[in-house]
Amino acid sequence: MAWTTSSITSASAIVLFLHYITLSLSQGGFSFTSPMAKSPEEQHPVNVVGWAAEDSSGVLAPINISRRATGEKDVTFKVLYCGICHTDLHQIKNDWGNTIYPVIPGHEIAGVVTEVGGKVLKFKVGDRVGVGCLVGSCHSCENCANDLENYCPKMILTYNGIYHDGTPTYGGYSNIMVCDESFVISIPENLPLDACAPLLCAGITTYSPLRYFGLDKPGMHVGVVGLGGLGHVAVKLAKAFGVKVTVISTSPDKKIEAIDRLGADSFLVSRDPDQMQAAMGTMDGIIDTVSATHPLLPLIGLLKSHGKLVMVGAPEKPLELPVLPLLTERKLVAGSVIGGIKETQEMINFAAKHNITADIELIPMDYVNTAMERLAKTDVRYRFVIDIGNTLKN
Amino acid sequence: MAWTTSSITSASAIVLFLHYITLSLSQGGFSFTSPMAKSPEEQHPVNVVGWAAEDSSGVLAPINISRRATGEKDVTFKVLYCGICHTDLHQIKNDWGNTIYPVIPGHEIAGVVTEVGGKVLKFKVGDRVGVGCLVGSCHSCENCANDLENYCPKMILTYNGIYHDGTPTYGGYSNIMVCDESFVISIPENLPLDACAPLLCAGITTYSPLRYFGLDKPGMHVGVVGLGGLGHVAVKLAKAFGVKVTVISTSPDKKIEAIDRLGADSFLVSRDPDQMQAAMGTMDGIIDTVSATHPLLPLIGLLKSHGKLVMVGAPEKPLELPVLPLLTERKLVAGSVIGGIKETQEMINFAAKHNITADIELIPMDYVNTAMERLAKTDVRYRFVIDIGNTLKN
Repeated sequence: MAWTTSSITSASAIVLFLHYITLSLSQGGFSFTSPMAKSPEEQHPVNVVGWAAEDSSGVLAPINISRRATGEKDVTFKVLYCGICHTDLHQIKNDWGNTIYPVIPGHEIAGVVTEVGGKVLKFKVGDRVGVGCLVGSCHSCENCANDLENYCPKMILTYNGIYHDGTPTYGGYSNIMVCDESFVISIPENLPLDACAPLLCAGITTYSPLRYFGLDKPGMHVGVVGLGGLGHVAVKLAKAFGVKVTVISTSPDKKIEAIDRLGADSFLVSRDPDQMQAAMGTMDGIIDTVSATHPLLPLIGLLKSHGKLVMVGAPEKPLELPVLPLLTERKLVAGSVIGGIKETQEMINFAAKHNITADIELIPMDYVNTAMERLAKTDVRYRFVIDIGNTLKN
Repeated sequence: MAWTTSSITSASAIVLFLHYITLSLSQGGFSFTSPMAKSPEEQHPVNVVGWAAEDSSGVLAPINISRRATGEKDVTFKVLYCGICHTDLHQIKNDWGNTIYPVIPGHEIAGVVTEVGGKVLKFKVGDRVGVGCLVGSCHSCENCANDLENYCPKMILTYNGIYHDGTPTYGGYSNIMVCDESFVISIPENLPLDACAPLLCAGITTYSPLRYFGLDKPGMHVGVVGLGGLGHVAVKLAKAFGVKVTVISTSPDKKIEAIDRLGADSFLVSRDPDQMQAAMGTMDGIIDTVSATHPLLPLIGLLKSHGKLVMVGAPEKPLELPVLPLLTERKLVAGSVIGGIKETQEMINFAAKHNITADIELIPMDYVNTAMERLAKTDVRYRFVIDIGNTLKN
């Protein structure tokens, strides 16, 4: 198997969303109001400090922006922590050609409520809350009706999106968030806000397909391809479901960590044909977090009859799909991207019950550019989280 | 979309099985006894006349073979009709390099019982019966336990297979079949045996995925790609489920037939970008019967969120799989091949209830070589069926 370690850990489901926007725009399938001409700090009454990239150099620096006043259904919260997703790196550098500068990244956001609107039902001042990849959707399509806002064609991304009012959205590398309560997640007391933040992207991205594709039954055997931000959380969640977990990686040196630290049951070096052959036909499903081009045939071979290979990383170029092995054993290859808000809350509650958090490296705000450089080299186990509350200077 | 009409109608699910055997053999994953050295007519006590190909010229000619005496659990029946599947054409020409000559093709077999073994429970002399693609399996694996003999790794093909006793299996281009009752299908009185025979392959191949993938709910919208032997039956079955059916074909001239004769609700010319664009995101599922190389992206685009593209034809080379469209709308691409015996009986009963048969051209035995030439040009709507009972001379 030919993918590289660096590619594996660069996988991120949210990559897809932003690609999707680009794709939709290029196909004329999307329509939204252009950003208003006013400067960011003039648009709204709430003054906010963030760190933004101003151009495709991707260098992040402090910026003053504004957010809307707390609306009737809005929750305003002080941001304490924000995870760094690989998508953030792509976006600040305009890798997909759709970045609206200045861009303030961050969609793994955790903090404490400071104000709620008059019609907010679920939150009060002082609550521990989080916001993930979405801050809006149409609320009228079939997907929205089914709590699948993440598949709403008009979903609004937490940053680099365009909100209902026509202004750009700004992410969690900032001190204050204002968000429709429909997109705010309640974080249980026992979950530390820093290590919990990445669950709002990496957690739900792997939890949702485990549930939807029925790979959450005790006694099942699930493979996790790639041991990066997504993969390491997938292992923990699958184990909590009572599933036997095998990590599949190009890097033999991750074996000890996968088993001893993350709790995986076994480890396969994908480049080792003997190991792969010995594991043929043993798995009920696989969560594939790799976004680099890689062969599907060996992974399909690992599945039992009727097994499911679910991609949560999105290689940019089409992969080769061998059809015959799908037919002869009724296997399937599917995709999945984050999850709806209801399911995200369910995932956070599940994580709280099982004491699951991401493994993080907590960094100060002014380390973010160095962190981005390290992330580009996948030099992190497994998520950087920015200590916004203590280190972002107003 | 780039596939050709001739390729579409050449689709056949059973192609896959034979490929699979070849594949398994080449990987050392299969083990069975080699054919016995005795000549075909010396092996068993029941004298049988069939038409066989002796070499890769593929020319079929009369041959005397033998079948085993009716065993305790066996059903012996006089073959009256046998459909010609495209697999037969591949197999007589050794296109997949695994043909055991002499080969008597035929796995869409219908006839009347002449003798039953002492422990046969389900059949009696005079019963109308059929045999499809399988005559044996291991009866001990998980798939067999779940009535999925078609996914048993030791399943035995109706012809060009090796039976439990180590002798080759011979298909339905012959006057007498002897078969374990576990693999015999009861054919209801109202189904004509000739037009029903192809259901034992083409029918179950499309019925099974419609059921397994939940595409059998009234009001759903299902696409059928390719209007050949499989496709035309898929349309009829899906309509009987109460599903809205759209045929997707490269051939505009099939539109009238698809709608007026087969009952499809609409028709898409896959080469017409405007038609395809207008139908984007409208289908719950697609049954893709095309075995030629063809692009998946336009088909994936036709699916709604969470839609399912099920392949029942097996292109020999890998297809290009665009991953992003799978992720952004949680779509899946799957495969399926025929069905288990219990489900085949269920399908036949369903067909009887809804008066569904294949559209056939009934031919005499000695026309078979001409029929093969025409089949190679897809000059048949939609299945040749050989009138074995009236035209095979003993």
